[in-house]
Formats: sequence, C-alpha cells, structure tokens
Amino acid sequence: MNATELWQRYQKWLYFQEGLGFYLDVSRMRFDDALIKELQPKFDKAFADMAELEKGAIANPDENRMVGHYWLRNPKLAPTPELEEDIIKTIEQIEVFAEKIHTGAIHPPKAPRFTDVISIGIGGSALGPEFVADALAPDFPNLAIHFIDNSDPAGIDRIMTQLRNRLASTIVIIISKSGGTPEPRNGMIEVKKVYAGQNLDFANYAIAITMPGSQLDELAKSENWLARFPMYDWVGGRTSELSAVGLVPAALQGIDIRAMLEGAKEMDEATRVADLKKNPAALLALSWYFAGNGKGEKDMVVLPYKDSLLLFSRYLQQLVMESLGKEKDLNGNVVHQGIAVYGNKGSTDQHAYVQQLRDGVANFFVTFIEVLEDRKTSSPEIEPGITSGDYLSGFIQGTRQALYENHRDSVTVTIPQVNPRTVGALIALYDRTVGFYGNLVNVNAYHQPGVEAGKKAAAVIIDLQKRVMEVLQNEKIALSLEAIAQKAGASDQIEAIYKIVRHLHTNQRGIVVQGNFGEPSSLTISAN
Amino acid sequence: MNATELWQRYQKWLYFQEGLGFYLDVSRMRFDDALIKELQPKFDKAFADMAELEKGAIANPDENRMVGHYWLRNPKLAPTPELEEDIIKTIEQIEVFAEKIHTGAIHPPKAPRFTDVISIGIGGSALGPEFVADALAPDFPNLAIHFIDNSDPAGIDRIMTQLRNRLASTIVIIISKSGGTPEPRNGMIEVKKVYAGQNLDFANYAIAITMPGSQLDELAKSENWLARFPMYDWVGGRTSELSAVGLVPAALQGIDIRAMLEGAKEMDEATRVADLKKNPAALLALSWYFAGNGKGEKDMVVLPYKDSLLLFSRYLQQLVMESLGKEKDLNGNVVHQGIAVYGNKGSTDQHAYVQQLRDGVANFFVTFIEVLEDRKTSSPEIEPGITSGDYLSGFIQGTRQALYENHRDSVTVTIPQVNPRTVGALIALYDRTVGFYGNLVNVNAYHQPGVEAGKKAAAVIIDLQKRVMEVLQNEKIALSLEAIAQKAGASDQIEAIYKIVRHLHTNQRGIVVQGNFGEPSSLTISAN
Repeated sequence: MNATELWQRYQKWLYFQEGLGFYLDVSRMRFDDALIKELQPKFDKAFADMAELEKGAIANPDENRMVGHYWLRNPKLAPTPELEEDIIKTIEQIEVFAEKIHTGAIHPPKAPRFTDVISIGIGGSALGPEFVADALAPDFPNLAIHFIDNSDPAGIDRIMTQLRNRLASTIVIIISKSGGTPEPRNGMIEVKKVYAGQNLDFANYAIAITMPGSQLDELAKSENWLARFPMYDWVGGRTSELSAVGLVPAALQGIDIRAMLEGAKEMDEATRVADLKKNPAALLALSWYFAGNGKGEKDMVVLPYKDSLLLFSRYLQQLVMESLGKEKDLNGNVVHQGIAVYGNKGSTDQHAYVQQLRDGVANFFVTFIEVLEDRKTSSPEIEPGITSGDYLSGFIQGTRQALYENHRDSVTVTIPQVNPRTVGALIALYDRTVGFYGNLVNVNAYHQPGVEAGKKAAAVIIDLQKRVMEVLQNEKIALSLEAIAQKAGASDQIEAIYKIVRHLHTNQRGIVVQGNFGEPSSLTISAN
Repeated sequence: MNATELWQRYQKWLYFQEGLGFYLDVSRMRFDDALIKELQPKFDKAFADMAELEKGAIANPDENRMVGHYWLRNPKLAPTPELEEDIIKTIEQIEVFAEKIHTGAIHPPKAPRFTDVISIGIGGSALGPEFVADALAPDFPNLAIHFIDNSDPAGIDRIMTQLRNRLASTIVIIISKSGGTPEPRNGMIEVKKVYAGQNLDFANYAIAITMPGSQLDELAKSENWLARFPMYDWVGGRTSELSAVGLVPAALQGIDIRAMLEGAKEMDEATRVADLKKNPAALLALSWYFAGNGKGEKDMVVLPYKDSLLLFSRYLQQLVMESLGKEKDLNGNVVHQGIAVYGNKGSTDQHAYVQQLRDGVANFFVTFIEVLEDRKTSSPEIEPGITSGDYLSGFIQGTRQALYENHRDSVTVTIPQVNPRTVGALIALYDRTVGFYGNLVNVNAYHQPGVEAGKKAAAVIIDLQKRVMEVLQNEKIALSLEAIAQKAGASDQIEAIYKIVRHLHTNQRGIVVQGNFGEPSSLTISAN
C-alpha cells in the first residue's frame, strides 16, 4: 500500500470519541473488507448478547451467574432497584470513609492520622489496584499503599519490615471474595501476628472487602473491624477494579474515584453502539480476531509510551488470558482458546525486546498506547525546538512505522492524559473488548475453571506433606523416599515427596536428612 | 509415562551443582534420545565455539567485536594482561568508591552523607540494575535507588518531585555506552536542570558510566564529575550487569558485589563443561530448542515463585529476545529467529494468566524458578504444621504437575536462597544459555541491528517536526495537513505530520489548530 492509500485507510478507520479525547487507530491491522463482511453476523450476535448481559442475563452459564460490572459505573442499568441502591450506597460509603480517614475523623488508637495502607489480595484483587496506584496516585498520596499479593514469606517480611515503625498508623485491607483463597488468608494471618507482636489490636486497623456473609465477612463482623465493603456475586475478580475492590484503595490514596467511574461510563456508552465501525471495543475485537485468526495465533504485545502505565499490561494479562484462555467453547468443543499478552512500556522496551519484534519471529501484534500530554508543566528544550516528550512521541511513531514496514501489525490507542477518567475508560474499553471477542469465538469469558484446579492441585501437596510428617514422626528409623512414599500410601508420589523433604530440610522444619540431594535415591530421612 | 517412569526420568536428568546448591530439572520437557543424538554435533560445535569466544575470538562478526562478559567474573580469562588488570582495578575502584560514599568520606557539599541514587540508563543499563535492586537491596539500603529509564517527561517529574527535599544528598549515575543514546541523554539534561534550579552544582553529584573517550566521558571529565567508571567495547549492554553498569548501583545500595561475581564465576565454570548432561546451560538450551523446534515456536513463560525475583523475566526478555530475535542467520539466510519471553511471579500469576496456560492455547513452555528458603527467620503456622511457605511450595508443585498433565512442558530451576551469589549465578546461567542457543540456531547473539534502526526511525520524525515548525513559522496563513506536507517536502508523510501536530497542540507548543481532530482533513494549522 503506498503512502496515499495508507493515509486514506488511516482516515477511514480512525475512531475518535470527543468527550474523552480518545482515539483508536486500527489502520495498521491489514484486514480487508471480506473479513468485515464475514464477521458482521458474528458482531450482530455479539451486540445483541451484550445487551442481554447488561440486562442481567445469565452470561456465565457454568457458574449460573449474571455479569454485572457495567452496572457499577451506571447503577441505573442494574436489573433490580435493590442492586441499584446497593451500588450507589457502597460508592457513597467508600467516599465518606476515605474522607474520614483523610481528615482524621477516623484515626488509629495511638496516632492522629493513618499514614499507610497494606492491601492484601491476589489476582483480580491486586492487579487492578496495583495498576491504578501506579498510574494515578499523587506524588504525595494521602496514604501510601503497599501490596501483599502472594504467599511468599520473604515478600511479606519485606513489607512488614519497611513499615515496622509506622505500623501503628497503617490500615490493612483484606480483599477476598470468599475469604477462603489461601494467599490472602495466609497474608492476613501473618500480618495479624505482626500487629499482635507490636501490641496493636488488629481490628482497629483492618478492613474487609468480601462477599457479604463470607467467612471473612463473619470474621470481620465478629471482631468489629474498622470497616467492611461488599464484593458482589455478579462481579468477577478480573472486572472488579471499579467495585469496592479497586475503589477503596484508590480513594484512600486520594484518587478521584467518581472520575474513574465517569470515564468508564462514557466508554461503556461508546462501546454499546451496535455498529462495528463506530464502536472502539468492536474494532479492537476485530483486530484481535484478525491478528490471531480467531485462534490466538499471535501474542498481544502491549506498549504504553508512558511510565505510569507500566502495569497496564499485567492488568490486561489477567483480564484477557483468564477470560479467553479456555479449553472448551460454549458448545463443549475442545478449542484451546486464548491470546497471550505481555509488555511493559515504550520507549524502554525498544531497548529490550523490540529487536525481536522488528526482525525476529513474527508471532505477535502490538498495541501502542499513546498519551498526548507530556507533563503537567512546560518542558525544557533538549535541543533547539525539541523536548524529551518530542523524542518519546518520535519513538512511538518510528517504531510503529518500522514494524509496519516489516509486516508486523499494530493498533494504536491514544488518550489525552493519564488521569482517573481516561484510566477508567481504558479499563472499560478492555472489559468490553474481551466480552465481544469471547462472544466471537464462543467461549465463556467469565469463569476460570483452571484456577480452581490449581488450588486443588496445591491442596493435594499440602495434604501429602502432612502425611509425610506423620510417617516420619511415627517411625523411629531413617527412611528412604520410597519407603516414606509407601508408608504414606503415595507410592506414585516419590518425586513430590522428595521436593517436600528438600523444602522442609532447607527451612529446618524438624527433619534430619542423610545423603546427597543431587541423588535422590541416596537420601534417608528421619524426624528429629 | 507412568509415575515410576517419570520418577526415573526425573532422576536421570536432574542436574545438581553442589557449591551453589543449584538444581535444574528438565524432565518435564518431553524430548527423547533421538533429539539428543541429532543435536550432539551441534552442541560439540557450540562448546568449541564458546571456548574460542572466551579466548577473545571475534564472536560478534557484524560489529567486529570480542564478547568478553565472562572475563568480568574471572579476569584471568581475559586475553591480555592489560584487560585483566583493567577489570580487577575497576572492581576495586567501585568498592573503594562505595565505601567512601557509605562512610561519608565522600559527601555532598551541603550534607554529611548521600542518601539516594538516581540511575539514568535504558535497556541493558537499566534492566539489570533494576532486577538486582529488587532482588537484593537490603530493607534499609545505604542509598535508596530510583530509576529513570525512559524519555517520559511525566516519569522524570515523578522521580524528581519525590526527591525534591533530598536532592542535595542524591547521587546521579548516567549510564550510556556512547553517551549518545537519546533517552539517557534527555534524562541527564532534564535532571541537570532540576539540580541547577536548586542551585546545586551537578558535577558534585554526577557519576558517568561510559566508554572511555565517549562524548559522555569527555563531558564528565571536563566538568570534573564525582566519578567515572568504564564500559567496555567488548561487553554488550544486555550482558553488562556484572560490569560497572550493574556493580556501581549495587555497591552503592550495599549489595555484596564480590559475592555476585563469585556466583557468576562458579556458574560459568559449571557451564563450561563440554558435556550436555553435565552442563546446565546446555540442558536449558536443549530445552528451548526442543520446545520451539529450534524456531521459537513456543513462548518462554518465566515464573519465579518469589516476590524478589519479579523483575527477572523483564531482564530475560531483553537478554533472550534481543540476542536471539534476528532476521538473518550467520550465513545470511532469512530465518526470523527468536523466543518470546514473559512472566511475573508465582503464585500471583496463577490468579492471572495460568488459567490460559492450563487450558488455553498451547503456545509456550514454562520456566519455574523455585527458592528453597522461605525467609530468614522461622515461620508461624497458618494451620497445624503448615506455613505460608509450604503453600507457596505446594503451588509450584501443583501447577507444574497440572501443566504436565495437560501436555504443557516446563523446566524447573531451584536455588537455595535469593542472595548475591545465586543471583550472579542465574545471570551467568542465562548468559551462557543464550550463547549456546544462538550457536545452535546459527545467529549472531551479540548484536542488535533493529535497535539502531529504531533510533533512526525516530530521528526521521524529530527532523520532520522541525521542518513542520519551520513551514508554519514561515507562512502567514493557516494550512491544511496536506499543504504543510507539501511545503515541508514530505507529501508521503501526512499521517506523521498529523500526529506531530496533535502532539504539539496538546502541549501548547505554539500552534493554533482549527477543525476536528477526529477528521484530519478538516484541520487547519498555523503558528501563533
């Protein structure tokens, strides 16, 4: 395509939403009109199904659930007055609570103000809050936020050590839908002990964000925690950033949550338009479909040219891969769907892996994210007439152009600034795109059977560890791995037992090991 | 394969390096003996070529350069006594310098001690130092480190605002091989202005890490900066973590750089063994080759189950993708090689994209990184006999097992702790693996032609911007994009000009625009 044709194509496909100052350019995805024609009936179905979903249809059939994250930013859409009121009330409560924390109306027993927040959650209860904190927190936030998003003892220690002198003014938020997910539960138990070690009553510092009536909710109620906010049955973890899950941490940091909700609402409206060319989420879903042949054959590389959007790709990894990465379609056919997502930021990544994107294996398409505003103030000149922001702008243009010349496709999302409204809009844009794409390829984008399976697989190992310790404590003599396996009724699990032993031994957990760990058959193990 | 066969395979292939307490398990890569036999001659060649490389052969023919990063951790290997002495002397100088900074023997004009470091660099001058800081910095480091690794004005502002009250005790390291890479140069110029704005003489705070005789080196010399340390012609950016590039920031934070070098040296020795089964880098290269059919057909997902190793995958993205992502092989054939790398950490990612890894598109293999030590102290029990570290250990085992059952391959790297020695060893392991794999697939793993091309593409846009501004300043009337393009002699660049105009307009850079940005043909532009 020559320069004139390309410019025509650019203008033909350019999407602009004036209210948000949002642009989407799909001109460098080399789909043709035949594909549009082929997909039109699928999009018509997707638009219709999405309308049903928004009205409260059971869009997650496996779990028999409604999918209601769109109601969070426009409560009038909620299918019942009770739900509508509940959403409105929760947002108000969050704002009132954050205000009281900021003014000191609510303060810790031994300090005039809270200074820090520890947010304990994993997956959808961490990736959104982490992304938003990095994108939007003020330079000097009302409360500084710290995340415990794993079951790593050393990781927990790092946070707790750094906060040890401010623990008496540190809020802890526990985010867990059921309250039963091991990582946040482990984090909570460990953190609680640290508070107890400083003679601080945890209940005075703790907030629960969970399903009303859950194990965690009951605990928080019975111990009279500082506050409780609801997670809803009809909001999935990866679409929960604009529920209490994301809004509570954001509000505590001093981020304008109403503006986030407003931006998402505006984008929801833009992506409700039942016309492919006038709907940015549909255009994105079309691009994904084209890139990967509707089968995820190409990875999605996400490159925001803005430091503060660094964590957007991690947020999208969950949203896209957990939603779309499914074994079966809705008819039960084995399809092994999904789209792999990775990326950090430009131009930094140009000095990392863009070498491969330009020249190497062509197994990807790029999503450039461009931010028009360089900074809040005017920029110094780096050379006559040129600023560092001009360079950043030159890098995104240059790389997009160079990739295109090497037959690598890309889409470009452009926003005027990184602010609560545009971040809300980006979240909403991808919520809807994933919904459309899931519909196009006929998968349930709202469940995650593999995550449950992962939890079960870990529980099997924990159980095996208990049996191994029982065997060792009951026997007086040193045993080989094989003998332990046999006595534990787990002869097909010798390797798992070897690893359990290696881990227990390293952490001095009451076993004595003789032999060489490099030769598992040489080992004998006893309790000490 | 039944449990007994699998356990046999595990033991057969288990690699153990006792000095480092390092394990590598490739038993879950389902290669067979036929592949080993087929690759044996290639490995023999790789071992021989690597020996030549270590002796100073021109292993990077395009750039006519030696490849000497192995000498950094064992200077005796350097091909001349001068190089050997230079390496030894530099390490000593770094230690002496860091010691003087820590004791206050060298201190800023208006404070008794330096408190912070800003490290300005990109690509290989950022990813290693960032990874190492996150992995190894003490909870309360001698100096707290902050990174400027981009040309993003808002990103620079964030760091400089947060440091504004400590600037008088903040060191700035500029890391740039040539001194000409735009991002660090832009960062330096901007940061220098901020120092000047506080009436601080930048030279009293600045350190240069660059090639002796470079533009940056000359500047630092002429302005009499605090210190200068050398980058070598024969060390590539992505393998420079154990040169001054990584050692200076590490030493300033109080990280034991001798232990890092020692760990790397031990791993270098282990990966020098010319026997596939006794060489962990060769086993890894074999695994990569098997997974992607020697063509990068599978992505490499890197999952360290340890918070402090979060940035290892970003480090590896550059090392692997910039080294292997090449258009042509060494014979000039077009091959489009490479291996895509992504990942963050487990178990966190199990609640993000592991859903897709288990059930979805099977376009990857996993590298699990296991750390045996949970934490420095003993752990509280989460439930009887079980700690949060046991859960983490259960998650890695459970996920590896579940992936295997779904026919997804994985390798597992196990280290006893995250400490300077093991981190040095991990760096060295992957340096060598990339070298072997590059040899197996016959690409130059030591150049990066696409990065240069990217810089040029951006320079074209910067130049175009200057011409556009000239046109606007010379004309009295408002012009359409087309007219500007014509007058700037860039009729095939209307789209680029549209974007330049949009960016300039947003940042109030002296142009007036009429019309609707959503319809580029409606726009008229004039200088104001």
